[in-house]
Amino acid sequence: MDLYNDIFHSEALKRFFSEKNTLQYLLLAEKALAQAQAENGIVPKEISETIGQYCDADLLDIKKLKHDIKQSGNAAIPLVKQLTQIIKNHDAEAAKYVHLGATSQDIVDTATVLQIKDFIDFSEKNLSILKEILIQITKEHRHTVMIGRTLLQQAKPITFGLKTAYWLEGIQRSCERLEESKKRVLCVQLSGAVGSQNPNISKAVNQSFAHILGLNTAHSWHTQRDNMAEFASILGILVGSLGKIAKDIILLMQTEVGEVFEGAAEGKGGSSTMPHKRNPVTSTAILANAQRVPFLVATILSAMPQEHERSAGLWHSEWVTLTDIMQLTAGSLDRSIELLSTLEIDKKRMLQNLELTNGLIYAENISLALAPTIGKEQAHILVETACKIAVSDKKHLKQVLMEIETGLSEKELDVYFTPENSIGLSLEIIDDIITRATVQNGGTGSTPSVF
Amino acid sequence: MDLYNDIFHSEALKRFFSEKNTLQYLLLAEKALAQAQAENGIVPKEISETIGQYCDADLLDIKKLKHDIKQSGNAAIPLVKQLTQIIKNHDAEAAKYVHLGATSQDIVDTATVLQIKDFIDFSEKNLSILKEILIQITKEHRHTVMIGRTLLQQAKPITFGLKTAYWLEGIQRSCERLEESKKRVLCVQLSGAVGSQNPNISKAVNQSFAHILGLNTAHSWHTQRDNMAEFASILGILVGSLGKIAKDIILLMQTEVGEVFEGAAEGKGGSSTMPHKRNPVTSTAILANAQRVPFLVATILSAMPQEHERSAGLWHSEWVTLTDIMQLTAGSLDRSIELLSTLEIDKKRMLQNLELTNGLIYAENISLALAPTIGKEQAHILVETACKIAVSDKKHLKQVLMEIETGLSEKELDVYFTPENSIGLSLEIIDDIITRATVQNGGTGSTPSVF
Amino acid sequence: MDLYNDIFHSEALKRFFSEKNTLQYLLLAEKALAQAQAENGIVPKEISETIGQYCDADLLDIKKLKHDIKQSGNAAIPLVKQLTQIIKNHDAEAAKYVHLGATSQDIVDTATVLQIKDFIDFSEKNLSILKEILIQITKEHRHTVMIGRTLLQQAKPITFGLKTAYWLEGIQRSCERLEESKKRVLCVQLSGAVGSQNPNISKAVNQSFAHILGLNTAHSWHTQRDNMAEFASILGILVGSLGKIAKDIILLMQTEVGEVFEGAAEGKGGSSTMPHKRNPVTSTAILANAQRVPFLVATILSAMPQEHERSAGLWHSEWVTLTDIMQLTAGSLDRSIELLSTLEIDKKRMLQNLELTNGLIYAENISLALAPTIGKEQAHILVETACKIAVSDKKHLKQVLMEIETGLSEKELDVYFTPENSIGLSLEIIDDIITRATVQNGGTGSTPSVF
Amino acid sequence: MDLYNDIFHSEALKRFFSEKNTLQYLLLAEKALAQAQAENGIVPKEISETIGQYCDADLLDIKKLKHDIKQSGNAAIPLVKQLTQIIKNHDAEAAKYVHLGATSQDIVDTATVLQIKDFIDFSEKNLSILKEILIQITKEHRHTVMIGRTLLQQAKPITFGLKTAYWLEGIQRSCERLEESKKRVLCVQLSGAVGSQNPNISKAVNQSFAHILGLNTAHSWHTQRDNMAEFASILGILVGSLGKIAKDIILLMQTEVGEVFEGAAEGKGGSSTMPHKRNPVTSTAILANAQRVPFLVATILSAMPQEHERSAGLWHSEWVTLTDIMQLTAGSLDRSIELLSTLEIDKKRMLQNLELTNGLIYAENISLALAPTIGKEQAHILVETACKIAVSDKKHLKQVLMEIETGLSEKELDVYFTPENSIGLSLEIIDDIITRATVQNGGTGSTPSVF
Repeated sequence: MDLYNDIFHSEALKRFFSEKNTLQYLLLAEKALAQAQAENGIVPKEISETIGQYCDADLLDIKKLKHDIKQSGNAAIPLVKQLTQIIKNHDAEAAKYVHLGATSQDIVDTATVLQIKDFIDFSEKNLSILKEILIQITKEHRHTVMIGRTLLQQAKPITFGLKTAYWLEGIQRSCERLEESKKRVLCVQLSGAVGSQNPNISKAVNQSFAHILGLNTAHSWHTQRDNMAEFASILGILVGSLGKIAKDIILLMQTEVGEVFEGAAEGKGGSSTMPHKRNPVTSTAILANAQRVPFLVATILSAMPQEHERSAGLWHSEWVTLTDIMQLTAGSLDRSIELLSTLEIDKKRMLQNLELTNGLIYAENISLALAPTIGKEQAHILVETACKIAVSDKKHLKQVLMEIETGLSEKELDVYFTPENSIGLSLEIIDDIITRATVQNGGTGSTPSVF
Repeated sequence: MDLYNDIFHSEALKRFFSEKNTLQYLLLAEKALAQAQAENGIVPKEISETIGQYCDADLLDIKKLKHDIKQSGNAAIPLVKQLTQIIKNHDAEAAKYVHLGATSQDIVDTATVLQIKDFIDFSEKNLSILKEILIQITKEHRHTVMIGRTLLQQAKPITFGLKTAYWLEGIQRSCERLEESKKRVLCVQLSGAVGSQNPNISKAVNQSFAHILGLNTAHSWHTQRDNMAEFASILGILVGSLGKIAKDIILLMQTEVGEVFEGAAEGKGGSSTMPHKRNPVTSTAILANAQRVPFLVATILSAMPQEHERSAGLWHSEWVTLTDIMQLTAGSLDRSIELLSTLEIDKKRMLQNLELTNGLIYAENISLALAPTIGKEQAHILVETACKIAVSDKKHLKQVLMEIETGLSEKELDVYFTPENSIGLSLEIIDDIITRATVQNGGTGSTPSVF
Repeated sequence: MDLYNDIFHSEALKRFFSEKNTLQYLLLAEKALAQAQAENGIVPKEISETIGQYCDADLLDIKKLKHDIKQSGNAAIPLVKQLTQIIKNHDAEAAKYVHLGATSQDIVDTATVLQIKDFIDFSEKNLSILKEILIQITKEHRHTVMIGRTLLQQAKPITFGLKTAYWLEGIQRSCERLEESKKRVLCVQLSGAVGSQNPNISKAVNQSFAHILGLNTAHSWHTQRDNMAEFASILGILVGSLGKIAKDIILLMQTEVGEVFEGAAEGKGGSSTMPHKRNPVTSTAILANAQRVPFLVATILSAMPQEHERSAGLWHSEWVTLTDIMQLTAGSLDRSIELLSTLEIDKKRMLQNLELTNGLIYAENISLALAPTIGKEQAHILVETACKIAVSDKKHLKQVLMEIETGLSEKELDVYFTPENSIGLSLEIIDDIITRATVQNGGTGSTPSVF
Repeated sequence: MDLYNDIFHSEALKRFFSEKNTLQYLLLAEKALAQAQAENGIVPKEISETIGQYCDADLLDIKKLKHDIKQSGNAAIPLVKQLTQIIKNHDAEAAKYVHLGATSQDIVDTATVLQIKDFIDFSEKNLSILKEILIQITKEHRHTVMIGRTLLQQAKPITFGLKTAYWLEGIQRSCERLEESKKRVLCVQLSGAVGSQNPNISKAVNQSFAHILGLNTAHSWHTQRDNMAEFASILGILVGSLGKIAKDIILLMQTEVGEVFEGAAEGKGGSSTMPHKRNPVTSTAILANAQRVPFLVATILSAMPQEHERSAGLWHSEWVTLTDIMQLTAGSLDRSIELLSTLEIDKKRMLQNLELTNGLIYAENISLALAPTIGKEQAHILVETACKIAVSDKKHLKQVLMEIETGLSEKELDVYFTPENSIGLSLEIIDDIITRATVQNGGTGSTPSVF
């Protein structure tokens, strides 16, 4: 539904996924085929150039084409028919060399891969920006102490930089996967009607075809769809990692938590009748995408057992699904950049929230401090008792401990009740992650242009 | 992706799911709200009429609206803003009464239900046509003998009418479910920001609102999404039943089976280089939809645990998904009507295929015939032996049986080797199903207009 | 994995889903078949009794059976073989009448439906208990004021009883769906190898068979699986509604919210090193189930296009999946009863949390109060200004309003800043829901035995 | 459901996924932790040895453990409690050093990875056997001519070896993915309660821990679940590729096709009442798994947005799901080896089926042959006409062509109507695939032991 798609998709890719642009990718495959055949002496060079010249989506009658696509059940058959007619109108001889030896799936699949290739290029740029933003946030909040939460309960202090460093690591692994998958995913399809190739699309033509298009060569994968499933899965994983970021931010934006906020903007997230509200609009969109994409990925996975040399239905279920996955992934990336580049952090509230349990989050510190002198077990019992008193009497644990005989002075206690002393090895972990990510992001850690 | 959607969607619903028409449903909800409030003395009658007059999607700046939808994260907030401004330009007083007491989700959900209502009306018409076609086919092929197949192996004879009668029964049950679900699914949403209602949207206003819109009243279901999940599931089941029909037809169209064919049409399913091919284009589209829809249904199901009084992300994941489900369902229905109203059946080939096993499919008939005289066990052994001979010597089983001492004359054997005598109670079952379906389809079984 | 299943399944149904009990259902179908055939003069009455007598899972060699099931690919073939042999050992004549005219899928499907029937009985008892608990909680907390939250932001006050009333309504609709589905789901399967029936399993035998088993009659649904898909969907919806309850409770248990808690129990949710933690163990299990079940439902939906008269693979994918769905549903129900019957509500904290925004949640009250005297627009501007001051100066909104010229006395302001006055029609809605639910739960609203 | 699991799971892994063995992996993690801490001077060496000595699942009270797991919501907490008590009974001092600094998720996740590691080892052995079988079949049937089919229609000839070579390539890519994923998937989890580590589980301890267990080090991935999603996806893709093989075989086994068969075995796929049936029992199981696994993979993907530092519900939904995925994958692998190592190919029937279209499948050959002399267009028209005559007169296309003036002699026609001349570059493609696969399978292409 167009009305809502702007929320969930990337505006930058609207034209990219338009009918015309999609057709242009099909024409690119036809053009490259003629050119590859010319390089191998199958098509005269001038004719290949003539064909290439007419491989232009602007020349198509798209309305008629869509009607014919419905009739024929795929895009390549009517496209080739129109293209042939267009060329025939100018050069009857050239028209004979269009789509030589190929099958419709060769063109459709190769066009899809070409579109995927450009999509990956686009995504990698955005991923790089996103990682750079995360590097900056992590550096800036290396020391920003906050509570760590498990099962949505306050647990122990961390720093906000540790949280964002882990966000960064997740994204980083998605980049690795995308990179590794290219050798499999970015390959041509050119094997003819039943995948057995023929002299017009011989091994040599395949190699030329792949070289022209900047793709890898491949035998038929007409009904071996594992690479498409891999591509879909990798995007699904990325969308999930972005969803995790959005989920954390939505939770941190809760009125009762109030530690992190989406950047304010005109007309965004506000409510005239509820002036205190600051709705997580952008995170909501990212989370909605993370809700939908796994099911689209599974559609592709579940469509793998395709019949014989070409499927009746399963292949067809991939088309719109793959596009949807790419659009939602791009949307999640776009909106994550928007979200993270304008994020507002309330350090004060983070500190306040650390005090909500009246010091109980530091109980373990005390146990560990007492253990060497009175023994682990005795320390545990003492602290447990103190905690119970703190809860029942609504007193701060430090206060309770000062009232009991613990052997620890107030000064010593202060140390154990300081959040900065309770963040474990957060800083070392952050530095480790930042160092690796900075190298991998090919950069020096300088502020990206998006700021 | 628009390029392919014509294959999988219903052309008749293209406009129905357009941006403008979707906005019109939102405006219908606003109009009915003012009217309901007028009926209950909350809004002056003339003002309610003024508001209603401007609830017209043609007056909207849709481009701006889409931009604002992205910013605000839902459609109702910017819509109400535009609508209010439009009315204010003509009648400042009236503008004060727009959207009184309602929350944005009230409008979005009610509009969705209104669209669902019209979608169901449209679908029920098509379902009625589809059932009528199936009734006709079933009647016509009540006696058309063919082999029944289990695990894709020839098993025993049935008639083609039995197969289509079962297709019909599956569709019939989907109609029942759709009917039963209406009392739950077709209800208004009008409960205000946190679902607690308020004087402007009191119980009485709710009742008027529901009455005006032809919907049922309901308490808030802002985060109780079971009805949407039910609606999605029911469509998913229907799409699955249509997929079963398409699956059978694709299998029956196989070159090696050749019993049933999609109707031929210009530019449909043919191949110039492979003149013998008759591709199952329409069935393929129906099957592709049956591959995709279950995952979309699961998206809705899995979005049910929505937070507190309004969800951040899960509700949003429903919007496009529900529309996709409706569009694919309508597409499957449309194309099933096309498929079944032009289906070609090759009775001769069906008879030929019954002979492929050299009579083995009748083996059980002989066992049963011999049992009374020589005992069940002895009969079984005798027939088993005969079968083995038939297979190893590539002889017809009847021939083998005539060569052994069985006590059955050739004339008697002929009876047992006649497919018409081996279809069990197919005819009775068919009559049963037809009778019930004819009544339920409100008809006399006369040929529907689609033929 | 057995190690974890106790968390997610119902202990009460462990035996119910055991191998032996599942086999017993298959044997019940065989027993009823012989009995139905006896009633129709096909099997001698004594023989039918003999067969019935040996339809006892304790007599089976289950180890061998499981081996044979793997070989033959379904449970009925080897079961019938063992059963026949067992009977033959005692009564050679009777053995000849076992499984007469039926096909293996008849027995497997009928057994599944029998198990579903008992599962529904069990579930309805638990649903009734659950609803009764919800009725009690709702009554008890009819007046318990708390903040309503949208997009995880504080919005406006409601009562806790309103929240639980909506939980109740969701469950109530699941009960309705389950009830309505019975006429379709709870039916026999008895149509022979290719669904065409035969004299041994005639219409009359079908009717006897159904009557004996307490099920509805049905024509073959060997490859029309819509009823199974309906059953799966209905459970999926129920699990989703339970998941919504668990989601709310997990969010309300957050340290920063602290309004509702799972009942404490020995060894439950605590942490010796983090004494302040109270982990939502039970809700977590319910939510995990709500995460898994939608995908299992989709497995069933997506398995609907089954081939011809019996599927090769799709039917088989239903078996374990349906059982998993039932076990997880029962688990969610069990644990929801446990969760809700021991729920602890902190009314004081609810009141405290209502004060977190310094009165901003009441801003709309003031606008509405001022509108009649100074006009809607002017009122809105005044309140908006006051809110901004409240936020920037960190003052309570009431304080700000007292400092501005508003025309409202402190006494009047107090009324508008009282949560009880801001809950809309919560109480009326609650009473409405309780009244209907009490009737439908067949009860007088008395405390259920689980307390 | 145990009754059916033998069909779908691997018998070889039954014990592997037992409760006790799963617990043993948890204990292995605890043992390695103590050992790693001993290596870093945190735990005395003798104590680490004492701990290690009691990390033995045979010492556990599993029944009690399962009860406690239900109470506490995860396996590690009660396990550590039991383990500590067991050790305390023998050495009170040692008991103090159990599980030092770790959090329960550290142990559960590390144990899962250890189990995954052994699962991968097991799978790789089976994958190697499977590939070897496919290499053998492909070599053997390099020349076995059969029809290639698209959209389930006969298209053009290929060889059976080409089909199996493509099966092989799909599997081969799954092996690559599995290999590449190891560096991410096979890593420890050891970061403490909130992922911030602490002196007891410092970077150095992490490294020792990883080294001892043969895993990679890693920062916390407590709520960064992309690696689990990757592992699940890769198995899902493999199961899909195996499903494709099974799908092809089921279709080739159809009575009307009859080209390929599952190996016969006692009690397998036969039917006493339908002696001609040869049910695809093994393929059916593989296909059922391919139907179920994608939904389980999607469960993992969709569980990725886990809250803060530990999730309440999403993590928990992974446990049984991951095990199910592994068991079904192992089942598919096992049964594929069984299926392919006993596959029967009917070359004669393949040749007969090539004749079903009366030569139409060779039409394109004639067009191509005539084009140089009479022009491409003229050739096309002539062949099209001939095809129409062949169909309407039910004559062989060669016969029709001999009756028309084509300029091709019968001898020349014979060449074009020979399947061996119509297989394109099948043989070259096969050789290419075999060569690569043989190298990658580390072998010389010798017959594997399974034969």
